[in-house]
Amino acid sequence: MSYDDNNVFAKILRSEMPAFVVEETDETLAFMDVMPQSDGHTLVIPKYPAQDIFELPESFAREVISATQRVAGAVRKAFDPAGVMIAQLNGEAAGQTVFHLHFHIIPRYEKSDMKLHAREMADMALLEQHAQRIRDAFAG
Amino acid sequence: MSYDDNNVFAKILRSEMPAFVVEETDETLAFMDVMPQSDGHTLVIPKYPAQDIFELPESFAREVISATQRVAGAVRKAFDPAGVMIAQLNGEAAGQTVFHLHFHIIPRYEKSDMKLHAREMADMALLEQHAQRIRDAFAG
Repeated sequence: MSYDDNNVFAKILRSEMPAFVVEETDETLAFMDVMPQSDGHTLVIPKYPAQDIFELPESFAREVISATQRVAGAVRKAFDPAGVMIAQLNGEAAGQTVFHLHFHIIPRYEKSDMKLHAREMADMALLEQHAQRIRDAFAG
Repeated sequence: MSYDDNNVFAKILRSEMPAFVVEETDETLAFMDVMPQSDGHTLVIPKYPAQDIFELPESFAREVISATQRVAGAVRKAFDPAGVMIAQLNGEAAGQTVFHLHFHIIPRYEKSDMKLHAREMADMALLEQHAQRIRDAFAG
């Protein structure tokens, strides 16, 4: 299977679809997952058409992990979770649903189980509030 | 909680405990998980005393993701899984059990669910065979 540039993240990168962006660099974009597994669930993607980690040039992998590290820090500051899971899924068998490489940053809270992946759409106003909390965490 | 240098990965880095190593660089070490969630389950760690992604210097994060990308490629070549999950867990609430930062590379096979995390010790001879398959994948 080759890269399909009609996937939703490609559309977000082309500004054909909106996203609740929390950080952007020349090589990466970070935004809220619209079907969050927990409050503060954020995604980091490269500005490069790769389906998975195997197709991604090393230089982009390094920019993506730097962004993931920064955004995870901001998410932790914004939401004060008990833990943070970072996950990157390659292939449908691993749970990948959008075929543009992405790193998940998923806060974990004590006594609250994560939701199943990609089943429930979040409230958009709430998502914008969450994005703003993360942007504020970068700022302050 | 501060970094405890008696954790098992610190002991592996000091050669006080054995490991089925598949790749080593100046900054990173990759070896088989002894309680694998699936065949080929491999770990990549930095040679730096960080509990989690928040304590890891960016330069090490970049070396770790480069190693993870290389080792994941070798694991895929060696085991031909349907998918590959990459995960990095921060904090007990996120499922972290060893408090030295590590990236999991977990092959996913169709029709076989993953085992629960860190419950069952693998057969050591089988693990060495698996490590050798990954080393061979690097070589050839």
